[in-house]
Amino acid sequence: MPSWKSYLDEQQSRFTDELLAFLRIPSISALPEAAADVRRAGEWVATRMRAAGIEGARVMETGGHPVVYGEWLHAPGKPTIMIYGHFDTQPADPLNLWTSPPFEPEIRDGKVYARGASDDKGNMLPPILAVEAVLKTEGALPLNVKFFFEGQEEIGSPTLPNFVGENRDLFTCDLVISSDGSQWSETEPAILVGLRGGVAVEIDVRGPTRDLHSGMYGGAVHNPNHALAAILASLRGADGVILVEGFYDGIPPLTNEERRQIAAPPFDEEELMDDLGLEALWGEAGYTPRERMWARPTLEIVGMWGGFQGAGIKTVLPSEAHAKIVCRLVPNQDPAKVAEAIAAHVKRVTPPGVTVTVTRPGFTADAYLMPADHWGNRATSEVLVEMYGREPYYVRTGGSIPVCTLFKKQLGAYTVNFAFGLDDERAHSPDEFFRLSSFRQGQDGYCVLLHRLAQETVPSK
Amino acid sequence: MPSWKSYLDEQQSRFTDELLAFLRIPSISALPEAAADVRRAGEWVATRMRAAGIEGARVMETGGHPVVYGEWLHAPGKPTIMIYGHFDTQPADPLNLWTSPPFEPEIRDGKVYARGASDDKGNMLPPILAVEAVLKTEGALPLNVKFFFEGQEEIGSPTLPNFVGENRDLFTCDLVISSDGSQWSETEPAILVGLRGGVAVEIDVRGPTRDLHSGMYGGAVHNPNHALAAILASLRGADGVILVEGFYDGIPPLTNEERRQIAAPPFDEEELMDDLGLEALWGEAGYTPRERMWARPTLEIVGMWGGFQGAGIKTVLPSEAHAKIVCRLVPNQDPAKVAEAIAAHVKRVTPPGVTVTVTRPGFTADAYLMPADHWGNRATSEVLVEMYGREPYYVRTGGSIPVCTLFKKQLGAYTVNFAFGLDDERAHSPDEFFRLSSFRQGQDGYCVLLHRLAQETVPSK
Repeated sequence: MPSWKSYLDEQQSRFTDELLAFLRIPSISALPEAAADVRRAGEWVATRMRAAGIEGARVMETGGHPVVYGEWLHAPGKPTIMIYGHFDTQPADPLNLWTSPPFEPEIRDGKVYARGASDDKGNMLPPILAVEAVLKTEGALPLNVKFFFEGQEEIGSPTLPNFVGENRDLFTCDLVISSDGSQWSETEPAILVGLRGGVAVEIDVRGPTRDLHSGMYGGAVHNPNHALAAILASLRGADGVILVEGFYDGIPPLTNEERRQIAAPPFDEEELMDDLGLEALWGEAGYTPRERMWARPTLEIVGMWGGFQGAGIKTVLPSEAHAKIVCRLVPNQDPAKVAEAIAAHVKRVTPPGVTVTVTRPGFTADAYLMPADHWGNRATSEVLVEMYGREPYYVRTGGSIPVCTLFKKQLGAYTVNFAFGLDDERAHSPDEFFRLSSFRQGQDGYCVLLHRLAQETVPSK
Repeated sequence: MPSWKSYLDEQQSRFTDELLAFLRIPSISALPEAAADVRRAGEWVATRMRAAGIEGARVMETGGHPVVYGEWLHAPGKPTIMIYGHFDTQPADPLNLWTSPPFEPEIRDGKVYARGASDDKGNMLPPILAVEAVLKTEGALPLNVKFFFEGQEEIGSPTLPNFVGENRDLFTCDLVISSDGSQWSETEPAILVGLRGGVAVEIDVRGPTRDLHSGMYGGAVHNPNHALAAILASLRGADGVILVEGFYDGIPPLTNEERRQIAAPPFDEEELMDDLGLEALWGEAGYTPRERMWARPTLEIVGMWGGFQGAGIKTVLPSEAHAKIVCRLVPNQDPAKVAEAIAAHVKRVTPPGVTVTVTRPGFTADAYLMPADHWGNRATSEVLVEMYGREPYYVRTGGSIPVCTLFKKQLGAYTVNFAFGLDDERAHSPDEFFRLSSFRQGQDGYCVLLHRLAQETVPSK
């Protein structure tokens, strides 16, 4: 009986053709007119899973774009993992910036160019192929595996929370492995352990019931733009410290071990400044830039507007002015409480002559921090050491990955990122590509990971 | 020989028909496709002036919409006045809010409804008719009269400054009488003596060279929205005082006489607050609301924007943020120096991590203050007393009327407003109208005013 490795060697040309077929489906979840293509991509995945020997593979309705589920559960006493990925893609425009059309994949210099090549089709196919290789060569998997592939990741997975909540028993698992992610570089592995949470608030300032002539009324009527500027300026100090009372309440200080882990991955301040065209970075005193991006909470005005925005000038004293704020949160911060603290602060500093309301536009996420020494991280770390010949970095990201917090909350399972995307692959941009070497690396990696995780004993919850 | 009064009585029905014909021309200066109609309105005016006995009436090219000029200059030793008005109109949309179509004038209840009825066709036709009445009944005018009617007032008269400068000799006069204006009420006359000047600046804040993900970079990169909010908040104090160094330099204090004149016209603070839906007026301490609107300088953010403005939320740390500011200025303030003072202030308070530029989007006007006891005001005041049975208010306006400062600067002549618009006539709005009684009142008024001004001796300059 051949090894999974020789099976992968033999099948690689077919697998590559299959990746190209998968990439040809324009499964853009943001476009209503592409809904049938998103579904077609899901059906393609379910069919491919069945061919791999995955059982019960099926397209499930979510009230939005579908989820594809499948399982292989014949390893009693062994851990149950659930492999996550997504088969939808970002839109492809502007089309004229693509060297070859986004949904006509082309291989150039060992890289496949197509929308979704890296994010996430090229990364989500390998675990299916790895399972096929192990089943074909060993007749069974060494542990229990569920598959959860979604079609709405790129639009924020709006119907997923309800869907997961309603099917909690089906998706129960000990650990989620996400194929939607990346490594630090071609030679340096990384394990993602932390995500910031977030909450958004909108501030609406209202003055006179209609726009006024700034010449006729200016000086006697408070201008909502000025009131808003004063409110916004009061939220943060010049040193980057957030001045909202209670904002930092309950946040534990960073431990020395955390600071060491955060400082470990290479970081070139000058390079970042060059890349962003900046003469200086900026932020909260007492923390490194990376600590500020990964492990400290923030308050950012993501949008503000009031009055005239055209060319030239219009002498208007506007009736309204608005701002949208997104806070990034760290563990132990409650999104709702942070929003309330901001509302209370705004109320306190609102000047006379205008009325202000503070609302929440919907974005909310708890922070997520997986213990670095969790059994899933330890096992994955060993696999990465075997693959790369060095210890992985334990990294965080300043953004939020809602599905990680969703699975933690609904299934009680942490998510380990195990994927082989790299930063240069232009995800979300024209000429997105994926290395065929990474495509193969993923297949090998998942074969090893399945066997390594099978050796773990899951602590009782 | 009949008097001008009985001539006006006899001709009133014909004059009304002519007003309706004039109003039927859709001379919307803002619409490029209406340029031919604006010209047609100018030609209509020139033809009507010739019929009235005005000499040399002609359409003159300005590089934009035309000017119509005419004259009657056979009163040696007498003052020369120039009557100003405009034959272009505002756009008429939204059309569905009009009771009758905007360019199909309809008389209802003694009022003619049409776009341009009050602003300014119904007000600019009376001086032509008055001159006809005097010429037909007296054979000559008692003083020298020039006419200057423009077709671009509603778009800010962009080509007028050059045009007036190049034809200074033709337009030389002792006094301008503007038919583009209003009285305080149906029973209370007013003379406009003061306009605020103005200057505009734009503040552009630039941070990173591209929009960033607020989660990924937030905390380490300065956000242009925050930098702009801090800059804008620093421009004015909570008490309404402008904090830009040098802003108030050289402004003389208001005299007791000025304060008395400003306080004379009725002003109901409660009514204004009700009208604008405000719980409080607002502004610079130590001045009444009307002093703040008429005679104190202001600094207003007329527009500001940065980042995301759509529904919901986008987690963006924007690359740029912008604000447009309009200052209203009083006599002795130099627009250029005020703009420089703001630029210096902005430079001083700009935080590290962003770059800021301050530019001037073009709007600039000197303040204008005509001495209340100027011979033109005295003569006009006497006419108004005769017409209304009471002294006029000496009013100012917080806005700017560029043509007044233009004529003062280029011709050395002050402008007296002599027109019979009223505030309720919905200028610039659907269902604009003009009272036929005001139309007649203007004709009588101009006949009296011409005779009264003829008695003046112009002081040598």
